[in-house]
Amino acid sequence: MPLEAALTELAHRLGSRFSREASILAQYGQSETHVTGGLPDAVVYPQTSDDVAMIARMCAKNGVPMVGWGAGTSLEGHALALKGGVTVDFSQMNQMLAIYPEDMLCVVQPGITRERLNEELRATGLFFPVDPGANATLGGMAATRASGTTAVRYGTMRDNVLGLEVVLADGRIIRTGTSAPKSSAGYDLTALFVGSEGTLGLMTELTLRLHGQPEAVSAAVCAFATIADAVDCVIATIQSGIPMARIEFLDEPTVAACNAWAAMAMPETPHLMVEFHGSPAGVREQTERFADLASEMGSTGFEWAKATEDRAKLWKMRHDAYPAILALRPGATALVTDVCVPISRLAEAVEETRADIAESPLMGPILGHVGDGNFHAILLVDKDDPAEMAVARHLSNRMVERALHLGGTISGEHGIGCGKLRYMAAEHGAAWEVMAQIKRVLDPANLLNPGKMVRQT
Amino acid sequence: MPLEAALTELAHRLGSRFSREASILAQYGQSETHVTGGLPDAVVYPQTSDDVAMIARMCAKNGVPMVGWGAGTSLEGHALALKGGVTVDFSQMNQMLAIYPEDMLCVVQPGITRERLNEELRATGLFFPVDPGANATLGGMAATRASGTTAVRYGTMRDNVLGLEVVLADGRIIRTGTSAPKSSAGYDLTALFVGSEGTLGLMTELTLRLHGQPEAVSAAVCAFATIADAVDCVIATIQSGIPMARIEFLDEPTVAACNAWAAMAMPETPHLMVEFHGSPAGVREQTERFADLASEMGSTGFEWAKATEDRAKLWKMRHDAYPAILALRPGATALVTDVCVPISRLAEAVEETRADIAESPLMGPILGHVGDGNFHAILLVDKDDPAEMAVARHLSNRMVERALHLGGTISGEHGIGCGKLRYMAAEHGAAWEVMAQIKRVLDPANLLNPGKMVRQT
Repeated sequence: MPLEAALTELAHRLGSRFSREASILAQYGQSETHVTGGLPDAVVYPQTSDDVAMIARMCAKNGVPMVGWGAGTSLEGHALALKGGVTVDFSQMNQMLAIYPEDMLCVVQPGITRERLNEELRATGLFFPVDPGANATLGGMAATRASGTTAVRYGTMRDNVLGLEVVLADGRIIRTGTSAPKSSAGYDLTALFVGSEGTLGLMTELTLRLHGQPEAVSAAVCAFATIADAVDCVIATIQSGIPMARIEFLDEPTVAACNAWAAMAMPETPHLMVEFHGSPAGVREQTERFADLASEMGSTGFEWAKATEDRAKLWKMRHDAYPAILALRPGATALVTDVCVPISRLAEAVEETRADIAESPLMGPILGHVGDGNFHAILLVDKDDPAEMAVARHLSNRMVERALHLGGTISGEHGIGCGKLRYMAAEHGAAWEVMAQIKRVLDPANLLNPGKMVRQT
Repeated sequence: MPLEAALTELAHRLGSRFSREASILAQYGQSETHVTGGLPDAVVYPQTSDDVAMIARMCAKNGVPMVGWGAGTSLEGHALALKGGVTVDFSQMNQMLAIYPEDMLCVVQPGITRERLNEELRATGLFFPVDPGANATLGGMAATRASGTTAVRYGTMRDNVLGLEVVLADGRIIRTGTSAPKSSAGYDLTALFVGSEGTLGLMTELTLRLHGQPEAVSAAVCAFATIADAVDCVIATIQSGIPMARIEFLDEPTVAACNAWAAMAMPETPHLMVEFHGSPAGVREQTERFADLASEMGSTGFEWAKATEDRAKLWKMRHDAYPAILALRPGATALVTDVCVPISRLAEAVEETRADIAESPLMGPILGHVGDGNFHAILLVDKDDPAEMAVARHLSNRMVERALHLGGTISGEHGIGCGKLRYMAAEHGAAWEVMAQIKRVLDPANLLNPGKMVRQT
């Protein structure tokens, strides 16, 4: 059997960095959410790009699927081995390879986590801004085209990956991009691989753009009477050119959950949390201008968190929103939705979603990175109750359909994985077949993360 | 003959929007620079996406090449019909289709020019920032992944095209991207087509990101003793997080040319020209901080142009640098080079290029968008003198080799066209074949701008 031949050879070559143990394989069949399914036949732990190329050649020769694995924090089951095969766990390729402070770049292996990356950078005065919340790996974040709270200022992984080393399905190693800040030399392969969810190649090295740690930071939180008021404040802020570093929305149920979790007493109405980065005078001016705009939109309870500890408390609350929401229904699983719309349509998208959820039997607080038009409803379900799951899926479907209807996208930042494949045709139409053409020419035997991203034939 | 069949049918369908007149075709065999070669067999002027799709189907059926044409301002002969066929001139698809002020987006046809676009936007308080100097079309700018003086702040076409409508080689019409500010749904086809120089499809509609016209603008010019001092000032400015809107470098010969052209009396040493955008207080602070940094690097003659007319005079001088340089040698043709390196290597790249040119018999002033590590030497040649052309090509080769050696790219913003194809293997290695695979699967008969971008077999 070709599978057995490949695994025997990989076991021989990788020794302790190869496993077929059932208890280990089972870990790779899990995900953080309700999405599950598929188990690899083996897991391998490469340490070098050449290891990955050897694994790919072996898999290609024997027709064995290969699926990359970072930290397993994906929310749509991206790294589930739907067709078995070999899961390539990058945890032993987690090194910072080089930092170029003058060029504000660094080169990392894909298995380095976001928090470790920023620890390694601390002494340089630079940081990597993309922050999806979870302590994901940089390879996983690039593969998913992740973003998070700071994308409104610093961009997503699309904007912050300058170049890649990639192992292709046949074991070829290629490099995309250069260390120059821009280029008009050829097809933008870096952008093609970023967001390709391991279906076109396995990233083995990433060149990342870094940013200067801001000299001054201020943050604020404020309450609004309605969702529309909060969103109007976001639009006015963007249009005034005030460079927000973060602007987060929390709806009433999210605020209630945070109050309960952290023993706080915020008024239970829609809130915005903002952060400004810049010079001391700059952030002062930005905060004041934002406060004026918020007040024009009827905001109350504007609180400016200038001190580091106040700011830390504020963002801890935001980062804890997920466990705070889960705590609303002990034992429940989260079905985390993720859509993104043009900002002019954001208020109606959120309000209609809010109304949909209110009419359903489920709890589903809404929060989002509203500077990007991106929001999530965290639907709390008993995943073993088919009726509840059906309701949750229906709510999620309606969010996606609404986002498309409003000119938006089926996924702002969580990606496609298993969970969103069924919406790809609706978003991309004939362009979806172009994606499939590219997939077929680069991975003709469909070995790279099969079952994902393109139409399944 | 299939070519004749296609042209007869196109003439029939397009009427006056089809031409085979020799005097007209000859215009499409020219370019702004020394790069020439190839003539189309016909030129067509589509007015709608359906026209373009019909043209593509007709060409596909008969194996006829098709080459897009914007304003003809490309510097590397991108739009030359090397294999004949049909040139698709987009001058009659030049409409602003929609403006969405709240979303800071607009939708345009590819033939609209940069200046017309910004005129149409003026009343909205928004503008499109990418400025390659020439009054290029947006389709051409996207196809070339153009940038220019403002990329250091606002990004290149990569960053400012949110979505596309594209006609593929077989006449299929696809849409890439959505109107949401970000997405993680599928392969980034927008980024794949931007910079593909008409070799993967013909863009028929572009969704563009707009930016707020800055409330306040200030500009300054300052002189440095050496190239290294000027570049060190750029690096220090970037690292301080001062958000420059433009930062342009002019070497001594460029300053001398500008002095002669505009009867100015700048000291003939390396100069930086900078511009800041923001709130009145913000630009004041930025300008002052920049002035301090410049002075630390030994800058002299710092002049702050706060008044609109002073600023206009300053940037007119910069925009006139090209004719000013051409005027150094009446009758000469420009061979405009274009490389981009990591900013830490910029001083040595410029200095070594300066020394190379000084040792040659040619004049070649250097200027560049140094915030991006991007610079140009404008080599003045008698294009009918083979010996001079050989010297110029040798200088250009050395710049390219040096850029690659320093971790940079063979083209910062002018693209590949005819002029840089021979360097693609050196920059991309095995990744160049991946580009060819993508080209072959999307354009199997090699009809879209043949002879460009990928390895010629």
